[in-house]
Amino acid sequence: MFTQINYPSPTDYARLCERPALEQAALGSLIEGVFQKVQTEGDAALRELTKNYENRNIDSILYTPEEIEKYAAKTEPNLQKAIKHAYDNIYAFHNAQKLVSAKIEINPGVVCWQKATGIDKVGIYIPGGTAPLFSTVLMLAIPARIAGCLEVVLCTPAEHPAIFYAAKLCGVTKMAKIGGSQAIAALTLGTESVPKVYKIFGPGNQYVTAAKMYANRLGTAIDMPAGPSEVAVYADSEGVPAFIASDLLSQAEHGVDSQVFLVSTDERIIQETFLAIEDQLKELPRRELAEKALLNSKFILVATEKEAADLLNEYAAEHLILACKNPEAFADQIRNAGSIFLGNYTPESAGDYASGTNHTLPTNGFARSYSGVNLDSFTKKITLQSISKVGLSHLGNTIIDMAEAESLQAHANAVKVRLK
Amino acid sequence: MFTQINYPSPTDYARLCERPALEQAALGSLIEGVFQKVQTEGDAALRELTKNYENRNIDSILYTPEEIEKYAAKTEPNLQKAIKHAYDNIYAFHNAQKLVSAKIEINPGVVCWQKATGIDKVGIYIPGGTAPLFSTVLMLAIPARIAGCLEVVLCTPAEHPAIFYAAKLCGVTKMAKIGGSQAIAALTLGTESVPKVYKIFGPGNQYVTAAKMYANRLGTAIDMPAGPSEVAVYADSEGVPAFIASDLLSQAEHGVDSQVFLVSTDERIIQETFLAIEDQLKELPRRELAEKALLNSKFILVATEKEAADLLNEYAAEHLILACKNPEAFADQIRNAGSIFLGNYTPESAGDYASGTNHTLPTNGFARSYSGVNLDSFTKKITLQSISKVGLSHLGNTIIDMAEAESLQAHANAVKVRLK
Repeated sequence: MFTQINYPSPTDYARLCERPALEQAALGSLIEGVFQKVQTEGDAALRELTKNYENRNIDSILYTPEEIEKYAAKTEPNLQKAIKHAYDNIYAFHNAQKLVSAKIEINPGVVCWQKATGIDKVGIYIPGGTAPLFSTVLMLAIPARIAGCLEVVLCTPAEHPAIFYAAKLCGVTKMAKIGGSQAIAALTLGTESVPKVYKIFGPGNQYVTAAKMYANRLGTAIDMPAGPSEVAVYADSEGVPAFIASDLLSQAEHGVDSQVFLVSTDERIIQETFLAIEDQLKELPRRELAEKALLNSKFILVATEKEAADLLNEYAAEHLILACKNPEAFADQIRNAGSIFLGNYTPESAGDYASGTNHTLPTNGFARSYSGVNLDSFTKKITLQSISKVGLSHLGNTIIDMAEAESLQAHANAVKVRLK
Repeated sequence: MFTQINYPSPTDYARLCERPALEQAALGSLIEGVFQKVQTEGDAALRELTKNYENRNIDSILYTPEEIEKYAAKTEPNLQKAIKHAYDNIYAFHNAQKLVSAKIEINPGVVCWQKATGIDKVGIYIPGGTAPLFSTVLMLAIPARIAGCLEVVLCTPAEHPAIFYAAKLCGVTKMAKIGGSQAIAALTLGTESVPKVYKIFGPGNQYVTAAKMYANRLGTAIDMPAGPSEVAVYADSEGVPAFIASDLLSQAEHGVDSQVFLVSTDERIIQETFLAIEDQLKELPRRELAEKALLNSKFILVATEKEAADLLNEYAAEHLILACKNPEAFADQIRNAGSIFLGNYTPESAGDYASGTNHTLPTNGFARSYSGVNLDSFTKKITLQSISKVGLSHLGNTIIDMAEAESLQAHANAVKVRLK
């Protein structure tokens, strides 16, 4: 089941870090058809498509506040407590990300600053399927609330009580019973019941992913491009094979396309991790998924910590776990990753649920250019400037010389008319 | 030439704020062909396409450092001085945007923080054409330098000395002689001479725009979706018609599709602005462009400041100029805009060139969901966490309860194996 790769040359790093080609399912005309139908028929299209694709009858598109209340109350008390704990931690971490705006006097009389404002209307998609992702409700609706988004529309075909509980706790403003590409179409275009939003967040299957890409082409922002979830672990002799195995399996159980990557300077760690994985696999309910995912896994032995860091910067993991001596010094060498977990007692699942960091992170190497979801994702930063007449006189010649050199005379005139 | 609209009802705001439909030129197969050719033939394709599309013969694709030095030196001394002044201001404003990272102890023994790292490789496109946009070199290459991007590749068919001067000043690492969709293809795919980058910035014509959208679909990040440039001015009786006219004309001279929007509570201001525009137009070299752009302009009389703010929030202008009493109080009501210019002595051209703020801003209503380019645009924010065994014991039950409710047993095991 396991492939161990020994001492690859740096020229092999790029190849080793390649992810399987994303299947860009040929869904173009199907998605376009769904959008067209939702555009022309609105709520009626949502009812019909939900019946056809999911065999669910929905009459009203939105849940009423009473329904949300009723379903939320069915959440187990223990789970309610856990969700509240996670809520507090996620809130605290994202609230600390608020822009501290300071006015800067760039030149005498020239004052510039930034302010952050929430995106007025956002949509959150939570898939149905085997795992009811109420944790993702927290990860998206909490920063939306902190950002001050006015309308937060949650679409989900899932019906687990904890999704309602989390939505209520986070102040979601509307909750729709719809899923799939038709939910993304509704958020993009708006219908009688579903408000048109400016940005759409959340995971989903290939239909949802394709619909989000299509929405993006129509001008609606999206959180980030999607790809299969992944973890990379770096371990030296300090690593604990049983812990490493549990982290690799947490990733592998997500789905057959999950990516698992272990880089170590210590062959013993790799070998013992193999044994620990086999041992822990036996008792996993989602064992079959995990086993299939492990077929794509890579276990790479490198000579030095420096090589490990180079390889991991090339890989740009969604999750990077550092099971090594002085993990903070190692983390300082990492330029590309979604989220980094330092030390033996920091499992990925802490960040997945409860430590406070966000679990919506860039996969598929997108950590080279994208951040994970954070408070910024729900805000825009607006620049402001206030210039006095004296201030403008300091800038005047610079503006005029540059504008005239760019052949933009009216730009120069806007200064001249004010200073004459 | 001018359309004045009096006291529209709030139900008309959305329609009044509509931009002309973006012409999504049917360039799909052309762009795909260019990308395919660059993919298979590399530098040779760039030479051939540059000959065919632009009738320029280029032998080497990159400028040598000596060539850059030589061309840069031809910049007029006055213009050098202006560019240095602008450089210092833009540097100061963007440098102040650095993330101040603070570790947060979310629960006892649970410490989370963020760090920002530069995107390793970025591409900047600067178009040829009538206006040599050396100012845009500053706006993109300065934050790239502050962010710590390792490779900054500038592609441009333009040959104005100031572009070389600005590139050198900002520490651009490579400069390529290529333009059009082939330049975007080279940055996306890499060739023998041009490095493959992770994110592409900069303005361009419809071919460049379509190529950037295509690059984005292939997984390369882009700065933001493109649209025609635009300004909105809000003026009450405090506004000065000659100043307002000069700002509207600065926008109108950009191109025939530029958008110009004046909202006022004072009909006298609108009428006098009409006269001032006619007066100032006479002497503009780009008069024809500006006149055509003004055909799309809107001059809207509203009853109250509140209505003006509502209308402007709906419009979400790229540039918003506030020529009114207490502009700061008015700015507090604005949730959607790219950049806001406060008071009678703050023309848009100050921000276009020299005050320090960035001029690459969201157009076409994208200010509802996108920020303008800022330091964030060149960085990723990575989250980090370090949890002690005691810390994990505080989170343990929460993680386990949530993971098990989501049917993700291996996620729960990753905690159990560490705490047993």
